[in-house]
Amino acid sequence: MAIHHFTPTIYYTAMGTYPPVLEIADGDTVITTTVDARGQDSFHRQVAERGNPQTGPFLISRAEPGDTLAVHFDRLRPNRRQGWTAASLAPNVVDPDFVPRLPSERGLVEWDVDVEKWQATLVSSETALGQYAVELSPMLGCFGVAPPRGQAISTATSSTHGGNMDYRGFVEGVTVYFPVHVPGALLFVGDGHAVQGDGEIVGTGIEISFDVQFTVHLLKGKKITWPRAENSDYLMTVGNARPLDQALQHATTELMHWLMEDYGLDTRAASILLGQCVRYEVGNVFDPAYTMICKIEKKRLSRG
Amino acid sequence: MAIHHFTPTIYYTAMGTYPPVLEIADGDTVITTTVDARGQDSFHRQVAERGNPQTGPFLISRAEPGDTLAVHFDRLRPNRRQGWTAASLAPNVVDPDFVPRLPSERGLVEWDVDVEKWQATLVSSETALGQYAVELSPMLGCFGVAPPRGQAISTATSSTHGGNMDYRGFVEGVTVYFPVHVPGALLFVGDGHAVQGDGEIVGTGIEISFDVQFTVHLLKGKKITWPRAENSDYLMTVGNARPLDQALQHATTELMHWLMEDYGLDTRAASILLGQCVRYEVGNVFDPAYTMICKIEKKRLSRG
Amino acid sequence: MAIHHFTPTIYYTAMGTYPPVLEIADGDTVITTTVDARGQDSFHRQVAERGNPQTGPFLISRAEPGDTLAVHFDRLRPNRRQGWTAASLAPNVVDPDFVPRLPSERGLVEWDVDVEKWQATLVSSETALGQYAVELSPMLGCFGVAPPRGQAISTATSSTHGGNMDYRGFVEGVTVYFPVHVPGALLFVGDGHAVQGDGEIVGTGIEISFDVQFTVHLLKGKKITWPRAENSDYLMTVGNARPLDQALQHATTELMHWLMEDYGLDTRAASILLGQCVRYEVGNVFDPAYTMICKIEKKRLSRG
Amino acid sequence: MAIHHFTPTIYYTAMGTYPPVLEIADGDTVITTTVDARGQDSFHRQVAERGNPQTGPFLISRAEPGDTLAVHFDRLRPNRRQGWTAASLAPNVVDPDFVPRLPSERGLVEWDVDVEKWQATLVSSETALGQYAVELSPMLGCFGVAPPRGQAISTATSSTHGGNMDYRGFVEGVTVYFPVHVPGALLFVGDGHAVQGDGEIVGTGIEISFDVQFTVHLLKGKKITWPRAENSDYLMTVGNARPLDQALQHATTELMHWLMEDYGLDTRAASILLGQCVRYEVGNVFDPAYTMICKIEKKRLSRG
Repeated sequence: MAIHHFTPTIYYTAMGTYPPVLEIADGDTVITTTVDARGQDSFHRQVAERGNPQTGPFLISRAEPGDTLAVHFDRLRPNRRQGWTAASLAPNVVDPDFVPRLPSERGLVEWDVDVEKWQATLVSSETALGQYAVELSPMLGCFGVAPPRGQAISTATSSTHGGNMDYRGFVEGVTVYFPVHVPGALLFVGDGHAVQGDGEIVGTGIEISFDVQFTVHLLKGKKITWPRAENSDYLMTVGNARPLDQALQHATTELMHWLMEDYGLDTRAASILLGQCVRYEVGNVFDPAYTMICKIEKKRLSRG
Repeated sequence: MAIHHFTPTIYYTAMGTYPPVLEIADGDTVITTTVDARGQDSFHRQVAERGNPQTGPFLISRAEPGDTLAVHFDRLRPNRRQGWTAASLAPNVVDPDFVPRLPSERGLVEWDVDVEKWQATLVSSETALGQYAVELSPMLGCFGVAPPRGQAISTATSSTHGGNMDYRGFVEGVTVYFPVHVPGALLFVGDGHAVQGDGEIVGTGIEISFDVQFTVHLLKGKKITWPRAENSDYLMTVGNARPLDQALQHATTELMHWLMEDYGLDTRAASILLGQCVRYEVGNVFDPAYTMICKIEKKRLSRG
Repeated sequence: MAIHHFTPTIYYTAMGTYPPVLEIADGDTVITTTVDARGQDSFHRQVAERGNPQTGPFLISRAEPGDTLAVHFDRLRPNRRQGWTAASLAPNVVDPDFVPRLPSERGLVEWDVDVEKWQATLVSSETALGQYAVELSPMLGCFGVAPPRGQAISTATSSTHGGNMDYRGFVEGVTVYFPVHVPGALLFVGDGHAVQGDGEIVGTGIEISFDVQFTVHLLKGKKITWPRAENSDYLMTVGNARPLDQALQHATTELMHWLMEDYGLDTRAASILLGQCVRYEVGNVFDPAYTMICKIEKKRLSRG
Repeated sequence: MAIHHFTPTIYYTAMGTYPPVLEIADGDTVITTTVDARGQDSFHRQVAERGNPQTGPFLISRAEPGDTLAVHFDRLRPNRRQGWTAASLAPNVVDPDFVPRLPSERGLVEWDVDVEKWQATLVSSETALGQYAVELSPMLGCFGVAPPRGQAISTATSSTHGGNMDYRGFVEGVTVYFPVHVPGALLFVGDGHAVQGDGEIVGTGIEISFDVQFTVHLLKGKKITWPRAENSDYLMTVGNARPLDQALQHATTELMHWLMEDYGLDTRAASILLGQCVRYEVGNVFDPAYTMICKIEKKRLSRG
């Protein structure tokens, strides 16, 4: 149950079977930092190339394909003041004939991220929004483990290994579960957002560097297919694919498996339950793979 | 501002330019009933054919194409004890190779709907769920106006005229806005659900007959393209299409129009705002057209 | 086996249960005309509103739901010189970020349609194409029967009843089969194209008025789900839906049914055969429902 | 213009920046072999793991990102007698409610591949097909170059770098063009099919080991985004994505670029031309990314 303070010096823009930067054990905690989506750290230094550069990979001792890795986010916190977002909806989230009406440049706007006041304020003042303020809800957009088959998958996208899921529910206090595809699992973390709307429909949250603390647990012999997560209230499963319909199919199927394996329900009982109680959330509809969350309140599952 | 008590004797399973059952005026209220999705009324009498039979159409005086009809749900209340749901996920919401594991028969299960206790309890006891109970959240699954071009569109599906949207947010207290496509608008209501999960993934909510009270207002000269809605907290737009991606495009574009026309935002400001503040909800992923809701909190829009 | 000469005086822009313009019998032939997609006849007179106005409906004696109607195209022939096409790709057939590069106006360009020379020549000379010429391949874009459930469905779209399928393979010599949904079937024909590319990706073929001759046969008690067709070489099935994936699923499933019902193959044999021998063609990717054709060479099916 | 005889000893099931097995120059020809999709060679020896193992990578001297690599297939020839196919349609190509009717096991059936007679004959005799024979049309299902951003992408799928496109048109005599993403391009070839239907809807062609001869040319400074190809009659572009609609968008956009860059057409002229003359073909609808081909006859482009 060691606590590791880790300062990254190398960053990856794909998730693959790279040399680990640190070996940690079941129950260990890591305190580290991540750079923003463009590779800038807390001092605005360009320390990595653009495209969701990742801190890691962290090798988890004894992790083997067929296990599940649990990652608990103990603390996710912007570590500088300046964040930025894009200023135009992605063309794929509006009707095709509305595209020419979008701003001709994607643009970038600055936000002042004040962790004391727990809010972000639009700095650029040229829009009718003025100095618009929103409360913070810090989350990680891109994190995951090394994928199977010797692959190295770009941090622009996501799949069964996690990756660029951009779901605003991946906040402090959440535990995320990944299938282990390679020995040591090889965990990567990055791409902090101070705030993000559903779908990441401008292609960014408020992009910013983070202080990150997480704790890992290894579930030996536990097999899952897609990332799962839970917080105090919900069980959640994650589907990453296009179109959104297929992401929804993956996430729904994975939640069926969870209810059948861990809650003693057959497909009929699980169907009856989810039919009236399931909730969906849109992770992202911007990245090459879209992300859909399928979830159920834990209190719906206590039957005693 | 008259109040009309209307007892239906005829029901339609398509929405079209049919003879109106009642003419009402801007500001009028209608108190009526709807049958369940299979055509059974509060006494379990089979008074209509299956397939979301509708009460109406109600002709709204002076409504013309190019206007908007606002329908406020004053009261939506199950008016009998017995409801029913399907007992198998729809095959299109799971991975194709999981389909053979679903129950071989879609089945139907009964729920006891108790408006006093405000809960529905699973009557059938053969599953591991036992006498499972959920709180009520009564909503209308299928309602809308006559479509354009002389069409009559099945109440199995939905489009710009509304129809079978199966969104669990269409509850008491919500105002829904429809584009008027034909003189008199011709409003239909039906398909009450005592409860429904996101997506209507078993193909039903808890299907039941309803007492319905609604009040209409006519917005002369107000043009909208897709259904819109609001409650005390949110502005909502509705996209009906397949795949879910296209439903999301319709809903997002319609919310852009709303922000641009009524809130003084250009596409850049509206993009910046929605990028960090938008929320999506899945209406249905079962019907021929899927339904996606795009929404924003009203408090995000007060800038004074 | 009568031959009917029918001159239309009324046109419909939806397919529904309208009063028949003519009753015909199994084996009868009809010689008639259709107007172009904008409602103009062979003399360029505006005789109908825009939007694929249809000639018909023709009531087929003794046709009942559960039967199949066979329509053989004996002759499909442009009956004037001037045709027109749109001059910009539809925004939904290119990458979303390419949309702003499309021509800002959809535009229309004229073609001279010469049935003697069997070619169409671009009249407008302002493009680098000059007086570009293509050989004719006259086809009907929109035709079908009355849909079920009392519906009237816009001639902008298509479904199980046929409609606006815009498949360039529906030419002279083809027999198209429709499920009969209402008594008398109620056949509509319209929307002739002198030429059309796959997908109808500019939203038009070379739109023009036609002389049409067709012969009907009634297949009593033959049940089909989606339109089917055949020519001298191929069996074809038609799926109409979005996305294209779903249209492909409908068409493939319908061809499986055909092989299983009429050719004595079980699903395993039909799978083995189609796996190596199936062909697909894209009907349209422009209309609200896309159209995919699934087909197999007849010579692949003769095993004697 | 050297001719290299290369005997593979190592195979990859992902395409990435691996050590090259051979360096070749612009104009060189390679004569080599590929194993079948399960890793078996011409002697049925298991020499590689399953999953479209690739021969290569071949490093092309002087190739740099921003160039285009042209690969001409001089000879593609099965080099053993026994091939195999799956015996059940993939569940994603039929209607979801038809899935339970598919064979419960995917099964495999054997074909005798006779290059002398130029036909493949079904060996398994238990189906109604008997000893069904089809003419050969040898093609490569999976080939391509190393992807960008340090990625290594599974040979189960495809993207801008090529990969598992499974298009039956990639036969002898075709030249395929790839964007060069890494220094040396790093070309891989594998996954021969003696025959394949459109869409690869059982998930296989007739899988078999091949003798392969190809010749490369380097187009310095020529930038393309997606794979392109040409044969004596057609220009072809390739889109790899899900859903099929998006694959079609990629392919159509790439063909627009080709016509605009090399044939002097603006978007309006290219739209008019493609609108009436474009053809589409379905590569695969089985793999994680589907493949759509957009093509135009070369004779449509000669305007002199």
